[in-house]
Amino acid sequence: MPKDLFSFFNPNSIAIIGASRDIKKVGNILLTNIINSGYKGKIFPVNPKTDSILNIKCFPNIEALTEIPELVLISLPAATSLLVLNEVATKGVKNVILYASGFKEIGGEGLKLEENLISIISKYSLNVLGPNCLGFVNNNLNLNATFGNSNSEPGKIKYISQSGAIAASIFDWSLKTNVGINEFITIGNKTNLTEIDILNYFMTQSEREGDSSNFPIGMYLESISNGPEFISLCSKLSKKHPIFILKPGKTEESSFAMKSHTGSLTGSDDVLNSALLKAGVIRCSSLEDFFIASKTFSLLPYVKSQNVTIISNAGGPAVISADSIIENNLKLTQNPIDLLGDALANKYLETGAKFLLDKNTDSILFILTPQTMTEIDKTAQAISAMALQHKKVLVASFLGGQKVQSGITLLSNSKIPVFDFPEQAIKALSFLNQFDNLNNDAITGEFPSIVTHSQEVLKIISQPSTSTIDNISADKIIKELEINVPESIYFETYESAIQFANKFNFEVVIKISGDKILHKKDLGGVITNIKNESEFKNSIEAIKTKFPNTKIQIQQKVKSGIEIITGIKKDSVFGPILLFGIGGSFVEILQDKNIVILPALKDEIKHILKNSKVQKILTKENIDSTQVIDILFNFSKAQYLLDKISEIEINPVILNSDGIWAVDTKIILPTINKEII
Amino acid sequence: MPKDLFSFFNPNSIAIIGASRDIKKVGNILLTNIINSGYKGKIFPVNPKTDSILNIKCFPNIEALTEIPELVLISLPAATSLLVLNEVATKGVKNVILYASGFKEIGGEGLKLEENLISIISKYSLNVLGPNCLGFVNNNLNLNATFGNSNSEPGKIKYISQSGAIAASIFDWSLKTNVGINEFITIGNKTNLTEIDILNYFMTQSEREGDSSNFPIGMYLESISNGPEFISLCSKLSKKHPIFILKPGKTEESSFAMKSHTGSLTGSDDVLNSALLKAGVIRCSSLEDFFIASKTFSLLPYVKSQNVTIISNAGGPAVISADSIIENNLKLTQNPIDLLGDALANKYLETGAKFLLDKNTDSILFILTPQTMTEIDKTAQAISAMALQHKKVLVASFLGGQKVQSGITLLSNSKIPVFDFPEQAIKALSFLNQFDNLNNDAITGEFPSIVTHSQEVLKIISQPSTSTIDNISADKIIKELEINVPESIYFETYESAIQFANKFNFEVVIKISGDKILHKKDLGGVITNIKNESEFKNSIEAIKTKFPNTKIQIQQKVKSGIEIITGIKKDSVFGPILLFGIGGSFVEILQDKNIVILPALKDEIKHILKNSKVQKILTKENIDSTQVIDILFNFSKAQYLLDKISEIEINPVILNSDGIWAVDTKIILPTINKEII
Repeated sequence: MPKDLFSFFNPNSIAIIGASRDIKKVGNILLTNIINSGYKGKIFPVNPKTDSILNIKCFPNIEALTEIPELVLISLPAATSLLVLNEVATKGVKNVILYASGFKEIGGEGLKLEENLISIISKYSLNVLGPNCLGFVNNNLNLNATFGNSNSEPGKIKYISQSGAIAASIFDWSLKTNVGINEFITIGNKTNLTEIDILNYFMTQSEREGDSSNFPIGMYLESISNGPEFISLCSKLSKKHPIFILKPGKTEESSFAMKSHTGSLTGSDDVLNSALLKAGVIRCSSLEDFFIASKTFSLLPYVKSQNVTIISNAGGPAVISADSIIENNLKLTQNPIDLLGDALANKYLETGAKFLLDKNTDSILFILTPQTMTEIDKTAQAISAMALQHKKVLVASFLGGQKVQSGITLLSNSKIPVFDFPEQAIKALSFLNQFDNLNNDAITGEFPSIVTHSQEVLKIISQPSTSTIDNISADKIIKELEINVPESIYFETYESAIQFANKFNFEVVIKISGDKILHKKDLGGVITNIKNESEFKNSIEAIKTKFPNTKIQIQQKVKSGIEIITGIKKDSVFGPILLFGIGGSFVEILQDKNIVILPALKDEIKHILKNSKVQKILTKENIDSTQVIDILFNFSKAQYLLDKISEIEINPVILNSDGIWAVDTKIILPTINKEII
Repeated sequence: MPKDLFSFFNPNSIAIIGASRDIKKVGNILLTNIINSGYKGKIFPVNPKTDSILNIKCFPNIEALTEIPELVLISLPAATSLLVLNEVATKGVKNVILYASGFKEIGGEGLKLEENLISIISKYSLNVLGPNCLGFVNNNLNLNATFGNSNSEPGKIKYISQSGAIAASIFDWSLKTNVGINEFITIGNKTNLTEIDILNYFMTQSEREGDSSNFPIGMYLESISNGPEFISLCSKLSKKHPIFILKPGKTEESSFAMKSHTGSLTGSDDVLNSALLKAGVIRCSSLEDFFIASKTFSLLPYVKSQNVTIISNAGGPAVISADSIIENNLKLTQNPIDLLGDALANKYLETGAKFLLDKNTDSILFILTPQTMTEIDKTAQAISAMALQHKKVLVASFLGGQKVQSGITLLSNSKIPVFDFPEQAIKALSFLNQFDNLNNDAITGEFPSIVTHSQEVLKIISQPSTSTIDNISADKIIKELEINVPESIYFETYESAIQFANKFNFEVVIKISGDKILHKKDLGGVITNIKNESEFKNSIEAIKTKFPNTKIQIQQKVKSGIEIITGIKKDSVFGPILLFGIGGSFVEILQDKNIVILPALKDEIKHILKNSKVQKILTKENIDSTQVIDILFNFSKAQYLLDKISEIEINPVILNSDGIWAVDTKIILPTINKEII
């Protein structure tokens, strides 16, 4: 049940504990910001040492208040904050912001304070924002509850940020660019209220606003608190609301170094990208992109932007932009329209008007360079006039410095997205296109059913003493997932072995098998090139000599074909994931990493397969992808075994003219240890 | 012999033909710009209808001048320009700028005018800039010979541009950012003077200035006039001068659709990238990058920048920047230094000073967000003070809008590269690093010798009637390049064929061979799986039935191994190129495109191989790359056969335990036609 945070962010009354007359203190800045922002609710400064601050009556302590404030801001040092938090909670207050730093982010003593904080919150069922946060701004209510130097332009975007500094930059930027802010909520250490709670709050606002609700959501997050919940909430919100995120850690090393091959194929950032794709969240790869996305979704209509017409008074910048259009998966309606260097504002207006009526044009990029005859301001006005009258997407780039500035200001004031460089404008169109594609790519279907495994299989995966499972046992699990496996037996006697091999005309493979052996091929523990009985016997003998104490598996040989590698494991943030890619000797060079966040619909798997290199091979060989989708979907049901098992991998899956086969399955149990070779 | 253009761009006297009293005319703007820029030489306006313009004595025509001006500007319509050009040339003038458009760029009548222009230039050995250009600016001489609204900040960079509009934008930008311009030469249609001539002119300036000369060169080019000359000049200049280029056409389709596999591997833009690499020219991928490179090389010292320390008052932007550092092939000296949100200017100064002395730090990125306590201007002054005293690389990003503006202006005025976003600052460090690496990667050695081919081979490649060459003939050429080929014969009688095959224990391959057949495998014209004499005979029979009128080649079978594909052909701009990559069934998916511009030293091939996927396979299989380098180097000698042949390709080259083999060579002659299958 999501928390009801409406009164938290839209309070009728606010108490500021630690309010101060000293203009350098946070408690003073907070009060000043609340007053200056034009807040209309009741304000209760709390400070035992004074009667009034900034002409507002001051209370000695929270108990002295005649009513329970809907929101309490605590602007005191960390340890003191906690003492006061107890008092506040006793009074019956539910909503609190803690601004102080000095909690878990500093380690040591701070960790203890954070623990105490958690127990107070839990004891009184409080809603606490922070600690170590800047507070929030709600421009709907004219409420600035931050201690930042944080005037901002009111507008459409709702932000969630783990960084107060990014908030400060965006506030300042909003004043220059006229990109308005609706709400800006900083969540700091997110000890209690996390992005999940704030997204839920946004969801209730969206529901309240009804069909017309379409505010964009921008997030700066250093971590995601609950992956599955995040995906679920964002998937719903992103049907109407553009959501974009900036999250560091793109280049960080994989956070789960793994023993299996599929593990080495992926880093945690790849998982994040797949999760964001599933959630319909647009990822910004830089601060620059984050600011561009803010401008895009704040100023432009949410319509199709894909087919772009470029109108420019300069050929060079127009051709360069044409390259960028293609690179951003947009389309040019035609070669850029070059109005030539002496184009006046009227020429822009006339040409623009023509393409506003062109049914093949979704968006227009106006490029202007300051040449001798160029009417900079008039052209800006012409573009503004066009934007007022049409629902198409208009963006502009006035390329220069001093002279173009007045035109840029005119466009900004008219809420036309204008950028220093055409590539930034094209990025904006690309963000809009990504949002538009979300709804086009909408997927429906059923999640995989839970497999009822046999007692035998349940017993196999409940062996506390081993770290991996032998091949033949692993095959049993795979079979219960309705996946083909080649027949195999363990070597016991030559008689039974030859009888088995003879069934396949000695087309068999001999491999070692053991619960600590993962990479048997590298060890020389696999023999494949057997032609007849005598070669078969010799091979068994050779393996027995080399690995005297190891079990030997004899397996029906699967004809060569396309090799795929796939695995399932648990991501620490997003839960079960399915990985797949091209297998075989080119696996490291092809770097074909495909990740499906589970549970996934069959169509999700299909969609991700479609963009993979596996699909390229299938296409090249003229093979229908259905079998591959089916095996991956069936395999995905192994996700329900996670917790009992740590990971499961099939390497290779072979797709040949006889069908599709799970040739070798490895299962790693949670007791994995370093003895594995 | 390069033209001497010193007096062209540094004239003692200038005549302006078409000078006008009408302030809207180009002839008036030109004269005004020359006067206002502070030009100290003699000025001769030419106009038959007036005695003086802007208080300068005016001449009725060029003959009336008492001396021969060193430079003549012709500001008249296209056709009239040509008439006047004849008069001017007769007078003995050598240096002329034609501003008019209406030549080849408009097609039709313009093409004729362009032809006439060429013949006049050639008749009188003139130096002509343009037509269809903006002219040039030489801030060393205080000379603005453009008709642009083109004041500019004087400084260090020399520009060459095919676009006058980009010039206009950069002039305007220079005024805002304090990035100064030294010379800006627009070349328009480059009918006579091309970027090659201008680069030669820059080269003489570099020689004149001596060791200390290090001006950067920025180029906007839509085409390159002479590829080999361009590479040769830039290679020399880039030893001291950073050269960066913006060239459209990144996404353009391959301009030489080809029949062979290697052809389909590459587009003309890939060739350009290889050529720029060889020339030491840094490619900008967007207008934004071009402006960033301008700022970088204009303001920063040319020293090592690779090891970066980030100093920031905000954690979020600092970690995001850390990602960007890694993505740009730079290194972090350590985790970003977070001065925290209340950092004053002194804290920046103190921390900056510490890292200026740190021998592991090459460059420092200062990030500032406008938080409550932040001293924006003072911090800008602190950074400026540090930059004055040290040779290390300092860049800054003040992230915000209104409040940070004064700090940005302060930094700009102190010539500190300051950027709207940290990623732009990091791009600047990356450009500097690319320039620094040029000298580290300097390569020496000898070019491949020209092979003296036998009469037999010369005869083979001089067959006017065929379009391709049969395999066995092609092998003869390959052998003369000292490359291993498997033995082979053409089928004539069963007796001789069996005798040949028996030599190899029937380990042979049977293939069809014909001068119009390029993709024999796709046609079913290759049989490889032969075990004994009877299978051999049957296979021959089968091929004979399927391809009754086609020659049959029997070739020693080469053991399987690593497959490489390589080819040589002529690029229309850069001349002979060598292509190579991974061969085999993954060729399309691996997209391993490696291009070497020829002639190339062995070390150049080694360098390009090092960064290829072929090398990844060699590394994985623990194979020394020497054999591959040798075969590619020897093969590169086939470049000297181009003109006689159109292209040559070996597919596959097989590297196995017996050595490295050119298994199948195709040669296409210039008479290539559509009958090829």
